[in-house]
Amino acid sequence: MLNDLVVRNRSYRRFYQEVPIVYEALRELVDLGRLSASGANRQPLKYIVSCERERNAQIFANLKWAGYLPEWGGPEEGERPAGYVMVLGDTTITQSFGIDHGIAAQSIMLGATEKGLGGCIVASINKEGLRQVLAIDPRYEILLVLALGKPKETVVIEPVGPEGDIKYWRDGEQVHHVPKRALAEILIE
Amino acid sequence: MLNDLVVRNRSYRRFYQEVPIVYEALRELVDLGRLSASGANRQPLKYIVSCERERNAQIFANLKWAGYLPEWGGPEEGERPAGYVMVLGDTTITQSFGIDHGIAAQSIMLGATEKGLGGCIVASINKEGLRQVLAIDPRYEILLVLALGKPKETVVIEPVGPEGDIKYWRDGEQVHHVPKRALAEILIE
Repeated sequence: MLNDLVVRNRSYRRFYQEVPIVYEALRELVDLGRLSASGANRQPLKYIVSCERERNAQIFANLKWAGYLPEWGGPEEGERPAGYVMVLGDTTITQSFGIDHGIAAQSIMLGATEKGLGGCIVASINKEGLRQVLAIDPRYEILLVLALGKPKETVVIEPVGPEGDIKYWRDGEQVHHVPKRALAEILIE
Repeated sequence: MLNDLVVRNRSYRRFYQEVPIVYEALRELVDLGRLSASGANRQPLKYIVSCERERNAQIFANLKWAGYLPEWGGPEEGERPAGYVMVLGDTTITQSFGIDHGIAAQSIMLGATEKGLGGCIVASINKEGLRQVLAIDPRYEILLVLALGKPKETVVIEPVGPEGDIKYWRDGEQVHHVPKRALAEILIE
């Protein structure tokens, strides 16, 4: 069951933008982050969410998409995320967030998958631009943006080829292919 | 359902050590890590697992437990983890692992919870000691040890008090109490 969720939880970058995400759903997702493990239980993560058209557009303008698809500038208007969860680190609690945001992000993305959503953990962020449009206090470090929506693309996992190339790619039907290393490669005996 | 898993997935530090974890279960858990998101899809994480008594003891000797319980030296013989997943970073793939190990660790811990196991993401590791006993190649950075077993303690989530103290503590019945910040504190409007 969790295996099924993990398999379905692919990174999606095109969405049915017109399908809204309600605020309460984002709130429930943040609660999954809240209840996840935190180094020394410090819980330095704070969150800002967005599911409103204008604010979404401001956030979108500060994200970079799909480094391996240089000819693709990111999702077109109409295929953009319908909501966002911004993951921040509160520097008044600690200066070092360890992997707390990775742990929390995974809980949130799996929760989104369960809700029929999908998305992408975005770390390529114009942080100063985002700080400005959302008026984020300097006490918060911007760590991640989780872009969410109803996925409008097919993502296929496939084995890494003999040449070891892990770059994802799109075929002529715009299906997104993601090479994943085999278990035998990553589990050291 | 995922919410239930996330709530049940507490950090446990005492186990029914005599209840074994089979190798295949650890292999399935590593596969959850394998199928989780990785920055730029580089997939630099590698894994070593252990479910064998002698090896478990060697690993245990290189872990530090529960920083907020200084009078407790960690679980006694008989209450120690029955298995481990060591999360390594392959420096021949990248030098920078970002939050990949946080993402993968959360998939694995949730998968363990689903299997009726529990455990703790341990980052306080005597890395050189662990490297020596497991003969870990210098190409791998030791990132995390996931300690697993059938939990033998009760962990209770409670609100952070007005004084803001987030230190976990144990009561006279050895119940482990973990203060968690309220959603209203972490979700910035």
